[in-house]
Amino acid sequence: MDPNAVAKAFVEHYYSTFDTNRGGLANLYQDGSMLTFEGQPFQGAQNIAAKLASLPFQQCQHTITTVDCQPSGPTGGMVVFVSGNLQLAGEQHALKFSQMFHLMPTPQGSFYVQNDIFRLNYA
Amino acid sequence: MDPNAVAKAFVEHYYSTFDTNRGGLANLYQDGSMLTFEGQPFQGAQNIAAKLASLPFQQCQHTITTVDCQPSGPTGGMVVFVSGNLQLAGEQHALKFSQMFHLMPTPQGSFYVQNDIFRLNYA
Repeated sequence: MDPNAVAKAFVEHYYSTFDTNRGGLANLYQDGSMLTFEGQPFQGAQNIAAKLASLPFQQCQHTITTVDCQPSGPTGGMVVFVSGNLQLAGEQHALKFSQMFHLMPTPQGSFYVQNDIFRLNYA
Repeated sequence: MDPNAVAKAFVEHYYSTFDTNRGGLANLYQDGSMLTFEGQPFQGAQNIAAKLASLPFQQCQHTITTVDCQPSGPTGGMVVFVSGNLQLAGEQHALKFSQMFHLMPTPQGSFYVQNDIFRLNYA
């Protein structure tokens, strides 16, 4: 399986879920997963999903600019680096962001998010 | 050992080496290390060091804006996400960049760079 294709499919799934059914993102994390959102750390699927649900906007649309990925070592995981734009409903200008994921394989042949770090790109 | 302190020390070492002795960066990578630089992939300490040496500027100065880190899982590694500015000699405006590292422990108790993804933040 081409790692770039896997990464691209994950990224498309992640952001379309974020934009249409944010609560569904909880399924992509596990108890040991970590999110650092604008410097704030969260651990575990439940805490991460609660943070994402509490963001102070409802409707949004992510547009992806770049996706880079690499195998992360002997565990069969991969690191994925994304840059893109985040358009919030009612805002004139999109926000630019960078986000990295460390994906780990599940026994079912899928991936979950072990590490997730999100930062807005301030001008 | 506090992972945040380790990440901060690594980041300071990495960029001060980049700015003063770029060839010395080769020591931070191993044969299985990977760099994706603005979408271009490189593997192995020698190829990565050659790429960094060939960048079309000599003098530069990195200034770090944010450093986020998380343990990367059972292997004892950590993921580090950096944002900052890159000032090239003779250029009026600094370039903004984002970079992620996946650090893995060495038997000597230090870390090497397993994964490195660099992107300029285009406006």
